[in-house]
Amino acid sequence: MSQIVSDYMQETLKHGSAIRKMFEEGNAMKAKFGADKVCDFSIGNPDLAPPSCVQKTLQELAEKSRQPSSFGYMQNAGFDFARATLAQFLTKEQNITLDKNDVLLTCGAAGGMHVLLRSILNNGDVVLGISPFFVEYIKYVESNNGIFKAVPSHAESFMPDIDAIEKAIDEKTRAIIVNSPNNPTGVIYTKEVMQELAKVAERASQKYGHIIYIISDEPYRFLTYDIEVPSVLDISANFIAIGSFSKSLSLAGERIGYVALSPLFEERGTLMAGLIQANRFLGFVNAPTVGQYLMNDALSCPDLAEILEKTKEKYRKRRDKLAEVLTNAGIEYKLPQGAFYFFIKSPTQDEKIFIEELKKEHILAVPGSGYGVSGYARLSYAVPDEVIERSAAGYKKAVENLK
Amino acid sequence: MSQIVSDYMQETLKHGSAIRKMFEEGNAMKAKFGADKVCDFSIGNPDLAPPSCVQKTLQELAEKSRQPSSFGYMQNAGFDFARATLAQFLTKEQNITLDKNDVLLTCGAAGGMHVLLRSILNNGDVVLGISPFFVEYIKYVESNNGIFKAVPSHAESFMPDIDAIEKAIDEKTRAIIVNSPNNPTGVIYTKEVMQELAKVAERASQKYGHIIYIISDEPYRFLTYDIEVPSVLDISANFIAIGSFSKSLSLAGERIGYVALSPLFEERGTLMAGLIQANRFLGFVNAPTVGQYLMNDALSCPDLAEILEKTKEKYRKRRDKLAEVLTNAGIEYKLPQGAFYFFIKSPTQDEKIFIEELKKEHILAVPGSGYGVSGYARLSYAVPDEVIERSAAGYKKAVENLK
Repeated sequence: MSQIVSDYMQETLKHGSAIRKMFEEGNAMKAKFGADKVCDFSIGNPDLAPPSCVQKTLQELAEKSRQPSSFGYMQNAGFDFARATLAQFLTKEQNITLDKNDVLLTCGAAGGMHVLLRSILNNGDVVLGISPFFVEYIKYVESNNGIFKAVPSHAESFMPDIDAIEKAIDEKTRAIIVNSPNNPTGVIYTKEVMQELAKVAERASQKYGHIIYIISDEPYRFLTYDIEVPSVLDISANFIAIGSFSKSLSLAGERIGYVALSPLFEERGTLMAGLIQANRFLGFVNAPTVGQYLMNDALSCPDLAEILEKTKEKYRKRRDKLAEVLTNAGIEYKLPQGAFYFFIKSPTQDEKIFIEELKKEHILAVPGSGYGVSGYARLSYAVPDEVIERSAAGYKKAVENLK
Repeated sequence: MSQIVSDYMQETLKHGSAIRKMFEEGNAMKAKFGADKVCDFSIGNPDLAPPSCVQKTLQELAEKSRQPSSFGYMQNAGFDFARATLAQFLTKEQNITLDKNDVLLTCGAAGGMHVLLRSILNNGDVVLGISPFFVEYIKYVESNNGIFKAVPSHAESFMPDIDAIEKAIDEKTRAIIVNSPNNPTGVIYTKEVMQELAKVAERASQKYGHIIYIISDEPYRFLTYDIEVPSVLDISANFIAIGSFSKSLSLAGERIGYVALSPLFEERGTLMAGLIQANRFLGFVNAPTVGQYLMNDALSCPDLAEILEKTKEKYRKRRDKLAEVLTNAGIEYKLPQGAFYFFIKSPTQDEKIFIEELKKEHILAVPGSGYGVSGYARLSYAVPDEVIERSAAGYKKAVENLK
């Protein structure tokens, strides 16, 4: 009997098996040498404990769970109180007054991305991304019948190439995804770049007679080290912000995120109505109850700034430590300003040779070609400090072996 | 500026506004007369408190939240311990030994449905449903590029018409959705009917050279009153069960559900690999952390049978009370065996006239045409007992007014 899965899934599984092979090799390595002998920089999973306010909220929810309907469905957009809290928080972040009706609570940023793409894409519409890019964007767009096209960023700086983006836009273009702080580079796009991008999108919207949205995917907005992420919803009606608290509050597994529309966008009520419908019929239905409470209480907490600062501080220390390790090993990199990744330059043109060499030293990294840019490797520093320290000799040796 | 949302979404919003209008009318009625003067039977939202084990789990999770990585990502399939617990539970329910690798944890049953349809449908593949059906199936199938076609059930009994299904199958058919206990009728499909259906699907699979899956959507499996829901995974390799604990554990908002494959299906490893991929790239990523713990602990609870029985008892009492109310009003119905709905016969051929008449008595119900069968109305008895009692005179009067 044939055709267990669809043709598309069959292709996906073929490709996915390469990634799985990498994971399996890593796991085999851990099994063989001991997990404490392997330095795994391949996974972007926040490894901190959530802030202490989470404990309090869960205790209160335990009490609340005795009440009727306490865990029933709510509106598909999320609890009104949680939307209001988020709108207030984002008002400060985005430098423009948001109302609860401007925000939708979603199952993580990934859920928000799907709900948005499903609402705006006609079959065959093109969504532009900027390479290097988070590889899942391809699937997100394709699952919603769009076509993903990558436009290279400026070499070295990894900043969006506005001219190249303008040239890439045509009548099929429906949206541009920007991801800042960027996964995998850690680069934060400046306000000026975002403003230029908005001008390009606005001009093209006029020219082609339909809105070209700029989707600002910001799951790392609250994990920055030297500079802040500029507000975008105050720049242009075309901007839509998607974010989550997976990383900053270490809540990735509970799936809480959001989509926020710009108050400059007059017809946003229609888009929000679409987002709410899509949240329901794509099977998300609503962001998980507990996640909504956790987000609401954390954002309402008087210590919030301090909580976020503490988390940043932990990652900042790791970043600086890993930077030192890489410098000592003679590896080139651009110091990440946000998120928890280094996108390091491979000493070999084909980064897979470098990755193999690192593997010999029990160091796991992801090839840059997975993000649309070869000659690089991505390292996640969402790992314990001691892993970074332990990896120092390995990086050095791998580089020396390639000389 | 035009084209805020896609063409498909524009159509959806047009249609959605009819449903929204109904809700708005209901809300306006509640605002005008007071919520305690309106009897709202339109919403299928479990209104009980979750069982007491939920409280304990949340307290434990509050402690656990202080640990690193406690709310980080886990495998896309869900925690191993939770999958193992579910597999053990379903082994009893489905009368065949399931392993943790046979089950996937999903964001509710709706999330499970999307993950499955995304994994199996090629563009234009047909999915058959049995009317009356849960109206969201249309969107679930269409969102995954399939075509939904309804086959009428036998009149009065609402049992699947196996001959009609066999006739409806052609080379484009990929799956058949059966929903038992059924929303909106509350009918439980018998083991015999499921066995006949399996034979039909197996024959057609042979004929057309690809598997025709039978998707058994069972979110109400654990809410039955007189008879149990028969096991299906022991019948045929073609069966896939999708379920949740939204209703039986009153956890709808936390989004915890599952997909379970039949151990009779030898190549199920390939399908499960697809489901796991789809869970990730459709943006669900994983079932919410807290929901997984809540499910795991409830299913591990020594009092589980008693907990489920208590919940059933509450709904059974409401069912019987509403049955009495309807009988006294002279309304025809088939006593539901499961779920929490009555699909009542309208005294008028066009049920919308009946629904308007009920509205005059401050009673809200959903037209059967929304489920693909006109001449009926759906009543949800996930409402407080006193609402049922208060509605008695209104049902009577509405029927009398139509004579």
